[in-house]
Amino acid sequence: MKDERGKPMQLISIIPDFQPLNDGRLLDKAEAFKPALHYAACSAPASCRLNGDDITPAALTDRSLAKGDQVVLDFGCHLVGRLTLELGCAGSHQDAPAYIQLDMAEIAAELDEDADRYQGWLSRSWIQQERLHVDLLPARVALPRRYAFRYVRLTVLDTSPKYQLVLKGASCVAESAVNMDALPARSFADDRLRRIYEASLRTLADCSQLVLEDGPKRDRRLWLGDLRLQALTSYVSFRSYGLIKRCLYLFAGTRFPDGRMSANIFTDGTPVADDTYLADYALMMLPALDEYLAETGDREALDDLLGPALEQVDYVLGHCLTEQFAIDEACGESSFIDWCDGLDRRAAVQGVLICALDAAASLCARAGDHGKQQHYANKAADLRRAAREQFWSDERHCFVSGGQVSVHSQVWMTLANVTCGQEAAMAMEIALSAGEVRMGAPYMHHYYVMALLQAGCRDKAEAHLREYWGGMLDAGADTFWECWDPADPGASPYGGVIVNSFCHAWSCTPAYIIDRFLSD
Amino acid sequence: MKDERGKPMQLISIIPDFQPLNDGRLLDKAEAFKPALHYAACSAPASCRLNGDDITPAALTDRSLAKGDQVVLDFGCHLVGRLTLELGCAGSHQDAPAYIQLDMAEIAAELDEDADRYQGWLSRSWIQQERLHVDLLPARVALPRRYAFRYVRLTVLDTSPKYQLVLKGASCVAESAVNMDALPARSFADDRLRRIYEASLRTLADCSQLVLEDGPKRDRRLWLGDLRLQALTSYVSFRSYGLIKRCLYLFAGTRFPDGRMSANIFTDGTPVADDTYLADYALMMLPALDEYLAETGDREALDDLLGPALEQVDYVLGHCLTEQFAIDEACGESSFIDWCDGLDRRAAVQGVLICALDAAASLCARAGDHGKQQHYANKAADLRRAAREQFWSDERHCFVSGGQVSVHSQVWMTLANVTCGQEAAMAMEIALSAGEVRMGAPYMHHYYVMALLQAGCRDKAEAHLREYWGGMLDAGADTFWECWDPADPGASPYGGVIVNSFCHAWSCTPAYIIDRFLSD
Repeated sequence: MKDERGKPMQLISIIPDFQPLNDGRLLDKAEAFKPALHYAACSAPASCRLNGDDITPAALTDRSLAKGDQVVLDFGCHLVGRLTLELGCAGSHQDAPAYIQLDMAEIAAELDEDADRYQGWLSRSWIQQERLHVDLLPARVALPRRYAFRYVRLTVLDTSPKYQLVLKGASCVAESAVNMDALPARSFADDRLRRIYEASLRTLADCSQLVLEDGPKRDRRLWLGDLRLQALTSYVSFRSYGLIKRCLYLFAGTRFPDGRMSANIFTDGTPVADDTYLADYALMMLPALDEYLAETGDREALDDLLGPALEQVDYVLGHCLTEQFAIDEACGESSFIDWCDGLDRRAAVQGVLICALDAAASLCARAGDHGKQQHYANKAADLRRAAREQFWSDERHCFVSGGQVSVHSQVWMTLANVTCGQEAAMAMEIALSAGEVRMGAPYMHHYYVMALLQAGCRDKAEAHLREYWGGMLDAGADTFWECWDPADPGASPYGGVIVNSFCHAWSCTPAYIIDRFLSD
Repeated sequence: MKDERGKPMQLISIIPDFQPLNDGRLLDKAEAFKPALHYAACSAPASCRLNGDDITPAALTDRSLAKGDQVVLDFGCHLVGRLTLELGCAGSHQDAPAYIQLDMAEIAAELDEDADRYQGWLSRSWIQQERLHVDLLPARVALPRRYAFRYVRLTVLDTSPKYQLVLKGASCVAESAVNMDALPARSFADDRLRRIYEASLRTLADCSQLVLEDGPKRDRRLWLGDLRLQALTSYVSFRSYGLIKRCLYLFAGTRFPDGRMSANIFTDGTPVADDTYLADYALMMLPALDEYLAETGDREALDDLLGPALEQVDYVLGHCLTEQFAIDEACGESSFIDWCDGLDRRAAVQGVLICALDAAASLCARAGDHGKQQHYANKAADLRRAAREQFWSDERHCFVSGGQVSVHSQVWMTLANVTCGQEAAMAMEIALSAGEVRMGAPYMHHYYVMALLQAGCRDKAEAHLREYWGGMLDAGADTFWECWDPADPGASPYGGVIVNSFCHAWSCTPAYIIDRFLSD
């Protein structure tokens, strides 16, 4: 989904004269649920290469590294944390600083890209590359920044003609709000499913930091659409209720002056809403809160968050509908749904809105406000009717949005119960065959699987999960990726995979799907 | 002076199986004289340029800096110290790290060089360039390393499409073991001389750190030949007796197992002698110690350092002479004298040795050991005779070393009193006219001026001082340089002026010369 400048729209939909408006009471509660991080030491890489040749980590500590030498350390799995290098000196006494470059990479392919030639539109500042001068050897160099990586490449930019560098050791302290080792053992139908499940949870674990980040490499930020999926996956695994509550409060506590929630929040320092509004992301607050309450029965959260959540549906109901109760063009364009060039989003957003209204009714029921419950239930019914009238094509046997047949429309009409069963399954088949637009991000693939399940196509859902997320494993994933198109494995929405995130929240749901829907 | 690989010899004359041998008693005394540094805050640059245009420092703090923007800060004079940047943010909230490059330069011309294209043989790690990621703005970025600079260039490598960087402030805390402001006011014959004098003392001040460094940008190390000149200049200005004593003890405390002193010592961390021996540098210990005692009458230093100092002449007397009592070829080649391709150093080193023997006799007299005093005086006389016999050419009316007529030979034969007066002056004239080899480094130009003075050519000495060091001022110097050839102002012995040192100990002597020899 790109605007005329080729940039994904949701990242440039800046709100004019944006003023954040923080609610101190809600943010204080968010602060109170800031998690203590769990630290895990990884004292050595699992394997190494020196100038392209395999070498044992032990043998590497005896090798003198001269200008131009390159060492690649493989820590064996994806990590989020801090790196420490033990550097020594060989030859004469060090007579000039050591100058090294470090490239941290989540997947090996990142190391093949030349950071200096990156021309993508996303900031090159996300590239995990550092150049360091070490004035005095031996030295223990503890890098202050946090990285997401499995691989670390050290390039000796220079020593001097008189001495060489020795890499005596490299270690990492991984950081996460959760501890994968504390999860109980679990059995699986087969090893493939086990691997998908574990990569899913590692993805969630590595995104679980002081907030539920979208990606620990990039953007390291709390996004509302991603949060819902992380929370669902957490309910079948880490059960990080405090962290999820904190994130819900952060969105409620940083609303725009008109009540809308931002698509994402900056949480490093004082929480600040980004000046980006995505209607479908804001609407996700309602199912996210309803699901959280179903898990926890947290009355305080209901009391505090119901009002802010309802503002999200009220805003869309009040500002974004046509006279025929269909999502209008502007709202479609300020929504995300998927990375998908040329997608007409109206039907899909209509589906999201209906799901949000169902959740609103459920939330009001939890609060004992049956008047409002009925109000939102009625709205949901109205919008289902409108959706059927506006988007269903008897001719094409599927939903058509802005003249376009997309899987996205069918998926969200299915999830919103505008269609169901055989009709829904057929509509998705038809849209896939039509091939007018293709699904882009794992975020959309998640909802596609959910729609298949809801339409009763369990086998198809499981097959898609195994094929799509399993495909990332086959391509070398330890954690699931921000972008994955099996037909174009090297694709980047940013103009360079070196800035892609290879551990991304919205890809973490297989464990949730396996646990809740694919386990007999 | 380069070997077959084009590298200055003295930097690669590695001693095989070198083993340092530290004397704890002497090094403890050296440690006791480690100076407390004087810190001076420089709270803002004097002037700035933004993308090539002048801008006031105040106006700069309001400018938004986007990818590719360059700011050059001019702090108005050469500084040695730590840099702090105050960075702010404009536009939307910072949604990616800020990625900046800083280039610190002693002179403006360094900024014209592309560090990534530097191909010189000296380590590129000396180039004062840093790349930094700033994850959270606003930020106070205090750079941990020390730099020698007048100019700081900040290049915005990237922000993001949504925000820009603001340089709210830049400040420096200068470090030195001395305080220029504490010197008494002084009058000068003219402004030119005043400027030369002041740049000379600023050079010494900026090199005066925890030891008397050769250059605060590079190599930041204690060199024996440089130390002597720094000490002489200090005696007419800062009178850093403790610091000079410390440096003398460091050389005495880190001798090789055979008693020789290294040409230089690494003093960052445990003091360690470099594995480089330069005969003329080691011999400089004797005049340096004798001059220190003439200033201070420091009996403890005499007691501790006389023995180690005498070992330097004894070694050369025992190992480096031909049967005719002339410096042998190997010793000539393991001496410095000057940066000068193809220079035959034997006559010059003979001169240095004679000066060292004179100093040895003087030191023994101070110690009351008149037997030894006579011994070294006799040796000096022998070597003067030998020098005359081996090197003087009646035909050419000057000294000839290895068939070569150089200024260097005449200068050191003059300083050693092998010749004097009119004959010495003529010999220097003849050698200059012969033009077989040219003087290279300011270190040699110092001794040339000293020889002129000794030969009674005061006007010529003053003219050369005004022309040579004044030439650096005309070329923009705030402090005097490691390299200066008026005929080739962009020369570098290293293959790139970006690694030249523009504040260098061996250039600091004009204040000494002006004070002791050019003031009536």
